[in-house]
Amino acid sequence: MAKDKKLVEAITSMDEDFAQWYTDVVLKAELISYTNVKGCMAIKPAGYAIWELIQKQLDERFKATGVENVYMPMFIPEGLLQKEKDHVEGFAPEVAWVTHGGLNELQERMCVRPTSETLFCDFYKNDIQSYRDLPKVYNQWCSVVRWEKETRPFLRSREFLWQEGHTAHATAEEAEERTIQMLNVYADFCEEVLAIPVIKGRKSDKEKFAGAEATYTIESLMHDGKALQSGTSHNFGDGFARAFDIQYTDKENKLQYVHQTSWGMTTRMIGAIIMVHGDDSGLVLPPKVAPTQVMIIPIQQKKEGVLEKAAELKEGLSNFRVKVDDSDKSPGWKFSEQEMRGIPIRVEIGPKDIEAGQAVLVRRDTGEKLVVSLDEIPVKVGELLDTIQRDMFEKAKAHRDANTHTALNWEEFKEILDTKQGFIKGMWCGETECETAIKDETGATTRCIPFVQEQFGDVCVHCGKPAAKMVYFGRAY
Amino acid sequence: MAKDKKLVEAITSMDEDFAQWYTDVVLKAELISYTNVKGCMAIKPAGYAIWELIQKQLDERFKATGVENVYMPMFIPEGLLQKEKDHVEGFAPEVAWVTHGGLNELQERMCVRPTSETLFCDFYKNDIQSYRDLPKVYNQWCSVVRWEKETRPFLRSREFLWQEGHTAHATAEEAEERTIQMLNVYADFCEEVLAIPVIKGRKSDKEKFAGAEATYTIESLMHDGKALQSGTSHNFGDGFARAFDIQYTDKENKLQYVHQTSWGMTTRMIGAIIMVHGDDSGLVLPPKVAPTQVMIIPIQQKKEGVLEKAAELKEGLSNFRVKVDDSDKSPGWKFSEQEMRGIPIRVEIGPKDIEAGQAVLVRRDTGEKLVVSLDEIPVKVGELLDTIQRDMFEKAKAHRDANTHTALNWEEFKEILDTKQGFIKGMWCGETECETAIKDETGATTRCIPFVQEQFGDVCVHCGKPAAKMVYFGRAY
Repeated sequence: MAKDKKLVEAITSMDEDFAQWYTDVVLKAELISYTNVKGCMAIKPAGYAIWELIQKQLDERFKATGVENVYMPMFIPEGLLQKEKDHVEGFAPEVAWVTHGGLNELQERMCVRPTSETLFCDFYKNDIQSYRDLPKVYNQWCSVVRWEKETRPFLRSREFLWQEGHTAHATAEEAEERTIQMLNVYADFCEEVLAIPVIKGRKSDKEKFAGAEATYTIESLMHDGKALQSGTSHNFGDGFARAFDIQYTDKENKLQYVHQTSWGMTTRMIGAIIMVHGDDSGLVLPPKVAPTQVMIIPIQQKKEGVLEKAAELKEGLSNFRVKVDDSDKSPGWKFSEQEMRGIPIRVEIGPKDIEAGQAVLVRRDTGEKLVVSLDEIPVKVGELLDTIQRDMFEKAKAHRDANTHTALNWEEFKEILDTKQGFIKGMWCGETECETAIKDETGATTRCIPFVQEQFGDVCVHCGKPAAKMVYFGRAY
Repeated sequence: MAKDKKLVEAITSMDEDFAQWYTDVVLKAELISYTNVKGCMAIKPAGYAIWELIQKQLDERFKATGVENVYMPMFIPEGLLQKEKDHVEGFAPEVAWVTHGGLNELQERMCVRPTSETLFCDFYKNDIQSYRDLPKVYNQWCSVVRWEKETRPFLRSREFLWQEGHTAHATAEEAEERTIQMLNVYADFCEEVLAIPVIKGRKSDKEKFAGAEATYTIESLMHDGKALQSGTSHNFGDGFARAFDIQYTDKENKLQYVHQTSWGMTTRMIGAIIMVHGDDSGLVLPPKVAPTQVMIIPIQQKKEGVLEKAAELKEGLSNFRVKVDDSDKSPGWKFSEQEMRGIPIRVEIGPKDIEAGQAVLVRRDTGEKLVVSLDEIPVKVGELLDTIQRDMFEKAKAHRDANTHTALNWEEFKEILDTKQGFIKGMWCGETECETAIKDETGATTRCIPFVQEQFGDVCVHCGKPAAKMVYFGRAY
């Protein structure tokens, strides 16, 4: 019993210290290890398996919209990075520079890609000649490097894994359509697979991507009331095309610039899963991204027939990702471990259960116990996984809605920030200066200008000038 | 017709200039583009889709043996790289060095991983405490960088994609068992999926991996008679464990060093597929790694009912990776393109075929044409893909066997190199000095000491001293 306690007690309560709770979960659920490479983490099997499930399901959704995967070099020569003015200003201060290859100094230094717009542009410049070559709808799965000063596992690390889509189109309309299409893919993926509700909208000019004409975003709310940018989709117009001279011959034999987009989602979504769904017992995984969906834990496993019955149950659940924990630890220890790792369903089976022809199913998300007859278990597990997936989304949505406030004026805005947590909806004049003042004063930023607009009066919540649009504000990761 | 001719004529004959033929195929089949990042390629959709099929099928085989995927940082601090003496000597001259992060010079420079033994060792040092933590059987899919002077697409590039498995075991026996197990996984994968026959064996001390106790390899033979190292599996004994101090407490509570292995396969296998199976019409893909297995080409597609029937055929072939080429190019152009891209089966369907209730199936590997009634096509295509997969392996094996020679003495050895091509089997004294002399004199290296030994007399083919073992020699990529 002492051992079981230790495992549970070792994690900080989320209400007491959310940041420490997060770190505890990340380490105790064995998602990552810290490394001697400063700011970089080692993603362990339990963490990487979540990423594999994200990759697989997101990639399927991409391919259903015509995306093709490619791979570009990881290095960007300095001259290439500098071709688009806003882009280099945005990224040059935070890249890692390679200056030597083998024993020789390079003639031109190269950075490790922080993102690959410049490489795709250089590629498209040669690959696109005619309208017949369009559209190009390419994506790559890779790692990128940004030299962050302060890092946190999954949320902000010097190297992270992601996908980056880069497309080229004949017309501005088509590019805008693809930008929104991919934002919708991200939103649906977050809600249906990760069980995380999102707000769809557009970033302000201040918050948009370096070099983009428009950046669209999905924003989610963590348990502690802070926002997380969860996926972005950028429309570049023909800005990069002009900087890189990417032209095609149209049907009338005239040269035209292409219109481009890019869009990305990263391993930071594993951080979002932790911070949206986790609790004081550890990780809580939505069934669709749980590497193990069902853990069968035999009780009194040395008694005759128990391990056999556990193995038989596993056999019957082969449509799911299922394991039996037949290690020599105590059942209590195994329960704690299964809870810490966020496995959606625990099946307890011991001699008494076998005698009664039943087993106990325990939901990780609610702790609810269900006694189920052995022959009904496969059907019941399938239903329960669906229910858990749905309930987790509803719970997260209820939390998000309960923590979304409206501020009609600056006093209300500040009071909400002081006494509550979460999103603040408010009217905004649209001026970058005003946005900067809000951030300097409170730490809150414009998260997005939501597609679904509401009207709360007609003056800016901060400066009182005429309001241009309704905005979600929040403190963010 | 002019256009069709152009496509076919643009590729060099493989007998005329094999190296140029290879480059032509790589570019015309649209597998890669060259980039402005010297020595690095852009892998295009047709190339990357092959890699995805390799990844998927190899990863499944790994997981069936208990492998778990992880992700380590891409950077190695210089001090870490230097911990194992042989390893640093082997790799330091060919790595890319990062010296600046953002605007600041790093206190300690870091290289981009050329391979990750040192990172896994640093990780295992903390992650392994007790015999209960063993074995660790981890793998990662990633890109690595080696600063090669001369590069060729897929075969040798400064950055390439691969998987690297890194394991830790309690005993030397278990490590050796895993080393051989993974070599067998590679061999079976090459033969069953890539249709490439391989020789399994051990590398000489001169040719083994920097830091390994033993390196095992699978060697394959390209169409031009040169060998290609196609996958390697290394047993490190406890050498790295001692250098990195990776110890565990055994059941008797005593500290023991772990025993380690590593094993890798790379995008170079796409080069092997090209050079083993390709012909003067372009790429020939084994069905199991063909992104498109069947291309349906409508004839006189503007005639009523043709495109509809083509779509119907595609529907019936939904168990396979199938496409319809309904572009506005001529059928002849489409045939050339499908052949260039190596698509295993072409289905030709036109008004006359429809009238006769049939279609024409054309095998890419042999050019053989089969007239098949429409309702039998799904079954026939399935059988034909199996047949093609098997026949391609047999053809490659026959070529390999016909180009494997035996040299009983040095005159024969040199004559074979001068007048023939392929592997040379010969006895060898086992001395590195003699091996070096052979290489300096002829360019041929010991490819491997095969597991299946034969006996051709008892003296070394080069120096005449007593022979220790039979070796495969060859000029290699």
